[in-house]
Parts: sequence; structure tokens; C-alpha cells
Amino acid sequence: MEEIVAGIDIGGTNTTIGLVSATGRVLTKSSIKTTQYPEFTDFVDTACALIKDQLGSLNSEFPDIKLKGVGIGAPNANPYKGTIENAPNLSWRGIVPLAELFAAQLQTVCKITNDAKAAAIGEMQFGAAKGMRDFIVITLGTGLGSGIVANGSLIYGFDGFAGELGHVIMVPDGRKCGCGRKGCLETYVSATGLVRTYLELNNSDTEAPSARMIAERALGGELAAIETFRRTGEMLGFALANSVAYTSPEAIFLFGGLIRAGELLFKPTRMAFEENLLNNYKGHIHIYPSALHEGDAAVLGAASIMWNS
Amino acid sequence: MEEIVAGIDIGGTNTTIGLVSATGRVLTKSSIKTTQYPEFTDFVDTACALIKDQLGSLNSEFPDIKLKGVGIGAPNANPYKGTIENAPNLSWRGIVPLAELFAAQLQTVCKITNDAKAAAIGEMQFGAAKGMRDFIVITLGTGLGSGIVANGSLIYGFDGFAGELGHVIMVPDGRKCGCGRKGCLETYVSATGLVRTYLELNNSDTEAPSARMIAERALGGELAAIETFRRTGEMLGFALANSVAYTSPEAIFLFGGLIRAGELLFKPTRMAFEENLLNNYKGHIHIYPSALHEGDAAVLGAASIMWNS
Repeated sequence: MEEIVAGIDIGGTNTTIGLVSATGRVLTKSSIKTTQYPEFTDFVDTACALIKDQLGSLNSEFPDIKLKGVGIGAPNANPYKGTIENAPNLSWRGIVPLAELFAAQLQTVCKITNDAKAAAIGEMQFGAAKGMRDFIVITLGTGLGSGIVANGSLIYGFDGFAGELGHVIMVPDGRKCGCGRKGCLETYVSATGLVRTYLELNNSDTEAPSARMIAERALGGELAAIETFRRTGEMLGFALANSVAYTSPEAIFLFGGLIRAGELLFKPTRMAFEENLLNNYKGHIHIYPSALHEGDAAVLGAASIMWNS
Repeated sequence: MEEIVAGIDIGGTNTTIGLVSATGRVLTKSSIKTTQYPEFTDFVDTACALIKDQLGSLNSEFPDIKLKGVGIGAPNANPYKGTIENAPNLSWRGIVPLAELFAAQLQTVCKITNDAKAAAIGEMQFGAAKGMRDFIVITLGTGLGSGIVANGSLIYGFDGFAGELGHVIMVPDGRKCGCGRKGCLETYVSATGLVRTYLELNNSDTEAPSARMIAERALGGELAAIETFRRTGEMLGFALANSVAYTSPEAIFLFGGLIRAGELLFKPTRMAFEENLLNNYKGHIHIYPSALHEGDAAVLGAASIMWNS
């Protein structure tokens, strides 16, 4: 009998669901629109039906395969309680007992954590952080998330909400953040932050371009776009140099859509990182792109929290 | 047979050596001048003779007591290698294999870590952090040190040098730091940082007062001294609020000479801390003074790294 795990990556817009083998192969995968389910109970019903479908089609070929559990990556997840709590980017209000509902409906175990923590466990289980005991994963999407691994285990913190590096205040009285405060790292370093920087530098645009468009313009040689990436990397490198003082990691992995910009982002990040590091850390901490396959990474990460236990 | 541990706290000026019971009682204690031993081999000889003396006098009363090991707290300690490495505040140059020398001479086990990490383990073992799995200890002396505990264990990091919060850059291009960079937290928040702030505010002094004198002046109602503590606490509170985003601790403990200033320091620290915390952390993370008895704390902390293993 072979065991597999269902990985669910819940985003504000889309949810991706797949079945993942113990070696990190994504065997099946499909998506639903998170926004189509204003009631979370409907969402759970649909997601569970999808998992049963995927499992059924796998079983028709490999009848011995059995579901070991469900791993969910979601915004504002409380890993200790198995809940999503007051997620501003989801339409489900208050505290949603998601793990309990999935466990009951599929008669299996279900764990939940936020997407950045799932990415960190995924990197450790199936990616470039295999065998590392101290590293940090930074997810760069609409916001900036992070998963910190120290002494070989993910740091959850007292309340389950450790690793909120996106909300380290970098600039007192700086840019307004969605969290209600000002100057948080993610207001500068994220897809949204990048666009804000670009608009500050280039106010000729009537409409905000996407982060991807800014990357294209930078590759095409547009100076404002290149400068936008330089500033973004500079702020990220500085923030990461400070982060090293906390957990002294072996490596830092960048994950998410923004890393497609490649050296446009990595070069200024690495420069500012080295420049701001304390002497005894200099020269031996590497910043790498995540080694997880982009299309599968979120589902893999979500599934990995079940494999890693 | 009862086991005891020798705790050695090595400071730039003084070294304190004591024998500590499993319940955290300091049974014997004496000091030597670190500066009197320009050769570390002479230092080890003297310290070992002292430990044997202390043990001898204990054994004359309690013949069953046996030495379980030696725990050393020292600046620039590498816990993985058992060495002190390039410590700017000690006269011993290069890499000093201290643990090996003590272990050989006393025929026992010896562990070494920096003083702030020793303070954190001491707080967990014998102080107010008993039973806590996630907390931070900040030591405020000449500099600012820290020990971070997450998931119930101290974070050493890849190279053993995690927890250098004193060298998080708070003010880009700020005050010059001993580490060669600028704007590090400890240039503002430490005994030395406090004096610098006071001198900036009050340039009538021809000679720099000590941190203790500034505290006395503040208690006596001197405005510049009060403002000095307010600014120090404000910077510390802000830095601690950012620190919470990393490991989400249950509590933060302040340790060291500067905390004798009491509310002068704690009040502005707590205010700035709450003001700058991310919403979901607000109101439930406490900042406490260390519960270890001041005179015994350093030796206790050093001994605790042997008990905590």
C-alpha cells in the first residue's frame, strides 16, 4: 500500500488542489476559484469532492494508494488550532475551523499552516533546503511572507504566527501598510511594493502596470523600471542582512512570482545583503531562488506539512 | 551521589566561578581578574585550581558531591567548536580552545556559549521562563546581547552565532558601532548607548557620566537624564516589536545592569513596543525583568548550559 497526501493551496483568488507522493511528485492537480465560495462550508464540500475524484481516478489505476492526510496552506492560518483567522483577503469572516471540516469529511488527518510556512517545509522536504537545519524562505507575491527554520524545525512561535517578516517596520512613518501601520517591509518588497516604487519614480503612467510588466520594461532597458528593481532589491537585501542576526541561517531562499525577474532582483538584493551583514556572517550565507517547480510549489508545500510530521 | 556543575562567567574585566546545584543554587562563588591573565593557558590553570578548591571544600562536608561538568559563558563563544573566537574585549587573540582545555584538566565535560545565550538557558532552567517554549532574553550591559528560544530550544544558528540583535541596523548611517558598521541597536540601547544619548542631549558635561549616574540623575528629576531613558526605551521597544515578527515569543526578558533603572527604562520600552506591534500580537506579549538573582545570574546561566542537556 502506498500513501499519498492531498495538498491544498488556498489563495485569495484561486485554490489549487493536488495529490502528492512521498517523494514529492504532484500526481494530480486542479484548481477552483476561491472567490466563488462565499460560504466556507460550500468550499469544503467542493474541495473534498475534488479530492475524492482525484483519488478515485488514481485508484482505478493503482488500487493500493491510500490518503494519508490533507495539508493546507492558507493565509492567516493558525497551525495550532487548525483554523483560518480573520483573513483580510478571503471572504470568510471570523474564525474558520477548516482542518476539522476536512478531517471529518475525508475521515483523515488534516493540518493547516500559512503559505509561506508551507513553502519553507516544502523546500526542506523536496527542494534545495534538504538536509539544512537553519534557513529562511521568503515568499514574494502580493505581500511578503516568510518561513524560518532553526534547529531543523519550523518556528511557529507561541501563537502560531511567527515569521511575519513582511511586517517588520523598515521605514518609520513610511508607506501605509494593509496592517494599519506604516513602513512595513512588504509595502516596499512585494509585487504591490514594486508597483508603488515604480509609480513613485515614473508618474507618467495613468494606470498602474503589473509587476510582470515592470520586469519586461526593465529587461527592455527602461531606466525607471531598472531603478525600481534596484531599490526593491536594496531594501530586501538590507532586511535580510538584519534577519540573519536573529537565526543565523545557512541560506535564504526566495520564492514566488517576483523571482521570475531573476538577476534584476537578485543582483541588488545580494549586493545590499553583503554590504549590510555583520562581519562574521559575511561571504558564507547564500541567497538562492527556490528549487521547487513553480507550477507545483504551492501544492507541494501544502502537502509537505503532512509528510513532515 | 549528588551532581553539581561549575559555572564560569568570563567577562572582559572579571571572571566569576561558582558551583551550582541541579535546582539552581549557587553553592560557592569567587572571582578572578580576567585581565590578569594575558595567556589563556594561565587563566585555565588558575580557574581549574579554583574549581578544585571549591569542590574540595564542598566535599569535606558532603563527600558524595561530584562534578558533572563545566558550563562557560563568554563573549564570542562558538558553542559548536567549544572555542572563543577573536573576542575584541579579551586579550586572548585568535581562536582559543577553552572547552577542550577545561575538559582535559578537570577530566569532565565542558560546554561554552556566549553570555546572552547562557542567560536565556538560565532563565528557562531556573528563572521566569520555566516551561516557556518561545521567548527572548535581552542582556543590557556594555553592549546588547540576546538569546532566542523557539520550539523549546535555544537558537544557535548554522554557525553558532544566532541572536546578535545588538547588531540589527536600526538607523541607516546612524551611530558608529564597534563592529565597523553604523546604526546598530547596541549603539543606542546599552550602557554605552545610553551615555552617548545623554551626551548628545547634554553637552555641558566635560566628562561622560556612567549609566548608573544618569539613572540617579533621572530619578533626581534631571530632564536630560529622563529624556535619555525615554529615547533608549523607545528604540528598544521599537526593536523588540520588530523582533516579535520573527519568532512570536510569549515573553521578552530584560537582563543586566541597565534594568536596575526599573520603570525609567521599562515604561518607555513597553509603550513603544505596544505602539509598534503588529495587531495580532498586541496586548499579550509581556516584557519582564529577568527573575534570576542579579549577583548569581551570570554563573547560574553559565552552569545551566550543562544542566540543560
